[in-house]
Amino acid sequence: MTDEPMADDTPFLSVDLARLDRNLTAVADRARELGIDLRPHAKTHKCAQLARRQIDSGAVGLTVATIGEAEAFADALAPTVSDLFIAYPLWVTEHKGARLRSLARRTRLRLAIDSVAGARQLAAVLADVPVEVVVEVDSGQHRTGVVADKAGALARAADDLGLHVVGVFTFPGHGYGPGPARRRAADDEFEALTQAARSLRDNGIDPVVRSGGSTPTIGFASAEVLTEIRPGVYPFNDAQQLELGSCTADDVALTAIATVVHRSGTRIVIDAGSKIVGADRPAWTSGFGRLLEAPTAVVTSLSEHHAVIDFPIDHPAVLIPDPGTTVRMVPNHVCTAVNLVDELIVPMADGPADRWPVIARGANS
Amino acid sequence: MTDEPMADDTPFLSVDLARLDRNLTAVADRARELGIDLRPHAKTHKCAQLARRQIDSGAVGLTVATIGEAEAFADALAPTVSDLFIAYPLWVTEHKGARLRSLARRTRLRLAIDSVAGARQLAAVLADVPVEVVVEVDSGQHRTGVVADKAGALARAADDLGLHVVGVFTFPGHGYGPGPARRRAADDEFEALTQAARSLRDNGIDPVVRSGGSTPTIGFASAEVLTEIRPGVYPFNDAQQLELGSCTADDVALTAIATVVHRSGTRIVIDAGSKIVGADRPAWTSGFGRLLEAPTAVVTSLSEHHAVIDFPIDHPAVLIPDPGTTVRMVPNHVCTAVNLVDELIVPMADGPADRWPVIARGANS
Repeated sequence: MTDEPMADDTPFLSVDLARLDRNLTAVADRARELGIDLRPHAKTHKCAQLARRQIDSGAVGLTVATIGEAEAFADALAPTVSDLFIAYPLWVTEHKGARLRSLARRTRLRLAIDSVAGARQLAAVLADVPVEVVVEVDSGQHRTGVVADKAGALARAADDLGLHVVGVFTFPGHGYGPGPARRRAADDEFEALTQAARSLRDNGIDPVVRSGGSTPTIGFASAEVLTEIRPGVYPFNDAQQLELGSCTADDVALTAIATVVHRSGTRIVIDAGSKIVGADRPAWTSGFGRLLEAPTAVVTSLSEHHAVIDFPIDHPAVLIPDPGTTVRMVPNHVCTAVNLVDELIVPMADGPADRWPVIARGANS
Repeated sequence: MTDEPMADDTPFLSVDLARLDRNLTAVADRARELGIDLRPHAKTHKCAQLARRQIDSGAVGLTVATIGEAEAFADALAPTVSDLFIAYPLWVTEHKGARLRSLARRTRLRLAIDSVAGARQLAAVLADVPVEVVVEVDSGQHRTGVVADKAGALARAADDLGLHVVGVFTFPGHGYGPGPARRRAADDEFEALTQAARSLRDNGIDPVVRSGGSTPTIGFASAEVLTEIRPGVYPFNDAQQLELGSCTADDVALTAIATVVHRSGTRIVIDAGSKIVGADRPAWTSGFGRLLEAPTAVVTSLSEHHAVIDFPIDHPAVLIPDPGTTVRMVPNHVCTAVNLVDELIVPMADGPADRWPVIARGANS
């Protein structure tokens, strides 16, 4: 079902470069229209080649989730990328503190806090280091972050501890849901950041940075409050974004190339399982991913090396792929899929496929 | 909540060696009592050190899921381990065929078929190579495998193609379910293998190998039909096995060591997410894993670097860990957790922790 040259044995993850570049341009243009900064989350791709393309398309720097990701990008991209935000309320032990001090010598560094205890840890190990700090605000996902109207008190406490607080950020993760969820999460983000910014001002701190955004909420982003967006998934998109309606099938730029190994009637089994596409399966999704070529087929179950895919009972038999056929599976969540492979295969129009090392794969700490 | 010396920054995967060895011995003893072979599935651990311990405890060889896993173990363990079964109905392209031919020169090799088309591919590239072939039978999971009474016809066709068919195998994966599921899956396995063996005999082929088993069904394995079991998870166990009742909390030998980064009332957030414990979450599980120390706490949601954990509303506040506390999280599915890290940390009673490289990590093809 694809005539792509087989650079490797299946399964492997393959990138469509034309689609990728189109996705990068679309979001960079959107940020420019809004007049706000784009700081893409690099946890999605973990690739130096992709980070460079994001910077070239206009990103001001990168967002990462861990110290390890920051180290990987600081090493691989210097001096092109020298502005990293670790968007996570780290608990900074002495050893993590030493790693952060080393990082701060190599790159501009922004860190996150969401408690006075966390701020105290940070201040203890980074007192003399020039890092920016932002307060994480819970805008409705109820994961980490403080309630918006408490942001100022935390910022005040951090400032008193000697930290350089520059603003607030949130992740409207509850926008990952069907129907009105995206719009509502964007509204919640607007309200939470507005309130948090006011709370900082009330405590004598200027909220210069008001950072938010996610791939599903980009379309609803408002420059009235946001100074920066941090979408991650948009270069590749995935089955979640497809089902949320935040992209179309033509915008999917990464797939698992897999081989059909079994067929019984309208059921097929392919050799891509949870060890290459990830096991993510939110309740609102139709299955464990999608076949790019067959939008009505459902990925009904996933084992480590099998995806079981059911076609509609009245699907034309001749259109159901037989064993040996190559197909393209769209992962539900591209960030966890990429984290399972050592490199992404990037077919080129002329000549052999490019190979992009996933430099921050497994960088969990 | 643990006084383990912190060899590494959290999160990381840690192995309890005493528990591991106890688990290895228990299952090896069980196979010996039954008088059948133990051929553990190495996809669970992907570690040479652990495979050696399994062989030392009495295993006859290893089961693997992919050619890549077979290559990793053939290279790392020669000549200790020289008997590998790739328990997967591979679609053997020319390139995969070349890899299998190379493997067959280094190790005794057993391969799987579940269709005449697949057998034809295999025969075309391995006609002159001494490999054993077994027919995969569907005992009720409805993934790959043939219906039991068709096993003989397939074995006959494969034999006619020049393949050396030695028996049948099945995976009773539908035993992963609450209540009577384990017992029923073991019964289904018994019936399917009995019927498939008869079907082979009816077609003039001796079913010397009758291989089955999984960690949840070990307790119900019957030597009346089985000649071999292939459990994978038993060295470590995990939250799925705990909730199925096929192990106790004291049998859990692998945990993600994580740090609490946030607390709001009875909710905490730790720094182990789906990128270190995997996103596996069958509908019958209570959550996305467990806290080893707090059996009543529920892992209600999982992001890439966050697990959100809710304690019961009336849980003593003093027993809810504050930010900075180290906890042990039990993954739902240990096979996908191990596949996310480059090494397992193995604390030693005397001296520094051992480090076991996950040599077949990401070996999907």
